[in-house]
Amino acid sequence: MFRTHTNGALRASDINTEVTLAGWVQKSRDKGFMIWVDLRDRYGITQLIFDEERTDKALMEKARTLGREFVIQIEGTVIERSSKNPNIPTGDIEILVTQLEILNEALLPPFTIEDQTDGGEDVRMKYRYLDIRRNPVKNSLIFRHRVTMEVRKYLSDQEFIEVETPYLIKSTPEGARDFVVPSRMNEGEFYALPQSPQTFKQLLMVGGMDKYFQIVKCFRDEDLRADRQPEFTQIDCEMAFVEQEDILNMFEGLTRHLLKEVNGVEIGDFPRMQYDDAMRLYGNDKPDIRFGMEFGELNEVAQHKDFNVFNKAELVVGIAVPGGNSYTRKEIDKLIDWVKRPQVGALGMVYCRVNEDGSFKSSVDKFYDQQDLAQWAKVTGAKAGDLICVLSGDASKVRPQLSALRMELAERLGLRDPKVFAPLWVVDFPLLELDEETGHYHAMHHPFTSPKPGQIELLSTDPGAVKANAYDLVLNGNEIGGGSIRIHDKETQALMFDYLGFTPEEAKAQFGFLMDAFQYGAPPHGGLAFGLDRLVAILGGQETIRDFIAFPKNNSGRDVMIDAPAPIDEAQLEELHLKLRA
Amino acid sequence: MFRTHTNGALRASDINTEVTLAGWVQKSRDKGFMIWVDLRDRYGITQLIFDEERTDKALMEKARTLGREFVIQIEGTVIERSSKNPNIPTGDIEILVTQLEILNEALLPPFTIEDQTDGGEDVRMKYRYLDIRRNPVKNSLIFRHRVTMEVRKYLSDQEFIEVETPYLIKSTPEGARDFVVPSRMNEGEFYALPQSPQTFKQLLMVGGMDKYFQIVKCFRDEDLRADRQPEFTQIDCEMAFVEQEDILNMFEGLTRHLLKEVNGVEIGDFPRMQYDDAMRLYGNDKPDIRFGMEFGELNEVAQHKDFNVFNKAELVVGIAVPGGNSYTRKEIDKLIDWVKRPQVGALGMVYCRVNEDGSFKSSVDKFYDQQDLAQWAKVTGAKAGDLICVLSGDASKVRPQLSALRMELAERLGLRDPKVFAPLWVVDFPLLELDEETGHYHAMHHPFTSPKPGQIELLSTDPGAVKANAYDLVLNGNEIGGGSIRIHDKETQALMFDYLGFTPEEAKAQFGFLMDAFQYGAPPHGGLAFGLDRLVAILGGQETIRDFIAFPKNNSGRDVMIDAPAPIDEAQLEELHLKLRA
Repeated sequence: MFRTHTNGALRASDINTEVTLAGWVQKSRDKGFMIWVDLRDRYGITQLIFDEERTDKALMEKARTLGREFVIQIEGTVIERSSKNPNIPTGDIEILVTQLEILNEALLPPFTIEDQTDGGEDVRMKYRYLDIRRNPVKNSLIFRHRVTMEVRKYLSDQEFIEVETPYLIKSTPEGARDFVVPSRMNEGEFYALPQSPQTFKQLLMVGGMDKYFQIVKCFRDEDLRADRQPEFTQIDCEMAFVEQEDILNMFEGLTRHLLKEVNGVEIGDFPRMQYDDAMRLYGNDKPDIRFGMEFGELNEVAQHKDFNVFNKAELVVGIAVPGGNSYTRKEIDKLIDWVKRPQVGALGMVYCRVNEDGSFKSSVDKFYDQQDLAQWAKVTGAKAGDLICVLSGDASKVRPQLSALRMELAERLGLRDPKVFAPLWVVDFPLLELDEETGHYHAMHHPFTSPKPGQIELLSTDPGAVKANAYDLVLNGNEIGGGSIRIHDKETQALMFDYLGFTPEEAKAQFGFLMDAFQYGAPPHGGLAFGLDRLVAILGGQETIRDFIAFPKNNSGRDVMIDAPAPIDEAQLEELHLKLRA
Repeated sequence: MFRTHTNGALRASDINTEVTLAGWVQKSRDKGFMIWVDLRDRYGITQLIFDEERTDKALMEKARTLGREFVIQIEGTVIERSSKNPNIPTGDIEILVTQLEILNEALLPPFTIEDQTDGGEDVRMKYRYLDIRRNPVKNSLIFRHRVTMEVRKYLSDQEFIEVETPYLIKSTPEGARDFVVPSRMNEGEFYALPQSPQTFKQLLMVGGMDKYFQIVKCFRDEDLRADRQPEFTQIDCEMAFVEQEDILNMFEGLTRHLLKEVNGVEIGDFPRMQYDDAMRLYGNDKPDIRFGMEFGELNEVAQHKDFNVFNKAELVVGIAVPGGNSYTRKEIDKLIDWVKRPQVGALGMVYCRVNEDGSFKSSVDKFYDQQDLAQWAKVTGAKAGDLICVLSGDASKVRPQLSALRMELAERLGLRDPKVFAPLWVVDFPLLELDEETGHYHAMHHPFTSPKPGQIELLSTDPGAVKANAYDLVLNGNEIGGGSIRIHDKETQALMFDYLGFTPEEAKAQFGFLMDAFQYGAPPHGGLAFGLDRLVAILGGQETIRDFIAFPKNNSGRDVMIDAPAPIDEAQLEELHLKLRA
């Protein structure tokens, strides 16, 4: 035992106790006749004191050699502090040290181990083991542990069984790219790392497991955007003999449990919104409903004049920015520049001030009179003092553009409070999504999602109109989970594969095991998967996931700490029956 | 909702309740005027009844179409059974069915879904989703879930934090073979799948996490022996500021907790045995101590006569087989054949009967008199009625041979009762192990294991004698966990790598991040990892792990259900900058 107590444990009631502590030197202050050292571990900080009157000279000198992040062990007596620190739980006491052992010295760390660090992202990632000593990262990892413990407790209490599914599976060219693993024992063949345990959890339902969950790593070899990781963690769930309603209720229950246990927030029934409404009102299938600024579609009240930009647009749509009339002309011009950035891609923006006296002043006064603009205000819900921002163009483009503007303005207006939680079910997703490049439809969730009853016939006439038994759980503008009721009969699944362009041979080669399984008594089933990294970050009040992952990779998929990936030996390649291309 | 109750829920107190049930048809019996159907789900079996008097004709006819494993939903009334079945919890009631819906038909399964199945291993693996419906497999998976929940609860209560470490890491040519993952984004470079999170958990200790655990998949590309899997699960643990004693106590506590909560068995302090003693007394570093039959070393009492086989042997060693004198000559000859099989490899076996009158009859009476043999009996602890079996040769060969014989005989004697649990710590492992082929020493646990204090100097003079702060937890003759106190300073780690034949450049390229980390204030630390698959199997009273893994691979590393691994597209290979070798 290197210690009798942790550095977060001692209180005034421990005064006069002889203790042994160990930890890291957070900092030391040397006043000559007196030296204070803050000793840190995961649990807290305890102040050590060495002083001329009570500490022997050799020990004083040894204490003087201590540098930041040295690992030490001390013995001493708990004494009352003369000047107490009410900000830390151990602030009433300090340790008068009688023995000091340096367990390990430390080089000066490349950044300061404090809540606010001077380390940039790159250096923090290279020395992630030092970064983890900092409270913001350490506490995020502990928070993640708390969340997963609560998830497991809740689901296990609901009779879910955690089942581990395999990591070395089979590559399927459908969906995102797989990471593959060459097989040494099976020449020329490869395993794939799972993008999700989708087919396995469905097989577990066929196997009668009834309620399955797993907190599991998944892998996608995608070109990484900011805040995407090639390996990520899902809370993967599936239930048999259920309808959509049962699944929504179950996982609403889980989410409510987490909000209560982890955040201390009690939330009632989660609102539900149709996918079509989400797109219409927020331009987005994961609307942040912590604030309003709902879209107002202006076609009827803006396409009757000579303004050609609007007249030729599929959709004219606006939002009312609360208090936006206070923006200067220059600020509005900047906003216009913002929506014209390539990341947003709008061609321009029309705006209309709503003055305090109820009159309007728009950038298109040439075309629209006060009565027209009053209609705009009515449709967008604009009040005196607001600013109406209007975009126009193809609906599929203008909606995400206005959605981006809405989010940006809400951020600026402080409407996205991370301590406020606004969950939302988005339901009735389309089954298929048009790939603009190829003109083909592909599965919006995945090819195992079942169409709504009676809609499968539409596949041949109006495929884009087929709705699926698919749903997303949205929290504060982020998709934290999504799922569907699955197809559970071979015929429908075969039809689906056929529609998605698989030949019967391809379908059999890739998913034959699943279609076979459906022939041996598959129950109706469905499920949902949460993105754990994102869920934990949002519950933790953060927008980025990186500090909730112990050892994240950078945007090139590299672990800069261990320097992976890396070349391998020629001999190893040969064993795998592989050659590098020139 | 497809059901109001599961098939394990209804009791006599539910009589007259209207219920909706769903599940699989386990079997049906058609007596003409009456049809009984056993409806099964994960939770149990409920008997359904259709009868001429109370059921309408169309429904009777529909019930007649039900085949094994059909998935159905029924409505009906709970009624009292006329002939009760005390063997199942729902045996007092049955359901008089009023509505029947066939949710999915089923082909005749390729083997019977019963506890005792007619399916061979191969067909069961191909249709694993059907195998999982069988109680022995289903219950094993549920048992595994219970064990992992208890593990997490215990460790979390002890302030351990579960931290996920990355799966895409760096290949190190040391140890077993890595599975590698080509990187598309980093041409010519590869990730490796972890053989264990060893270095990451050590970095978490450097990072101040203090107590870490993770239930995590690990990967080894080894030629598979029976009951080995290329992917397996560890309970991986590490603690900072601890000595060996602290770790043994902590994980003895965890194991005791599991035995109590999962098996209802209370066990006191676990015995501890030095590695050298385990080898001497059991010929094995994971002795099964549920029974005795300890080795007796006979050199002193068997090398003083003219029997050259013994005289030239490094070790003469025997065990007393309780009641073995009852074996016929033929049985003993068979035993001799058994030890001479290539899997055991003994050249022969000397035996000595201990007659009921205390006299001896040996296969080497030509060389040894009754007094000699009395000494053998004394050393091996043989009593009247026993049989002494003696092997001789090189200690490193003869010990495992006699150990194999000991285990085989114990099995035949029924001394390996799976309901009896005999845990044991084996401690003080050697730091190094001689590779007979190369003549080089390599790390017995791994290169991060610390030598016992003061023994590092022996490295240059008597490397085989250096003991490590390494320990294994053994349960019923199986290693269920192992670990060590780690090196935590750069100098010792560099010395260790040097000794193991790494050049400084190699050590830096592969483990530079760890040695760097040791310079920034690494605390003393150590840990342990349990093999979860094995642990769960033993707690579940089984010798083989396969039924405790939902989707295991076969001995060629194949998943025969999904048919993985499999070839991948040429385009996919090209994206990965790879070619197959001709």
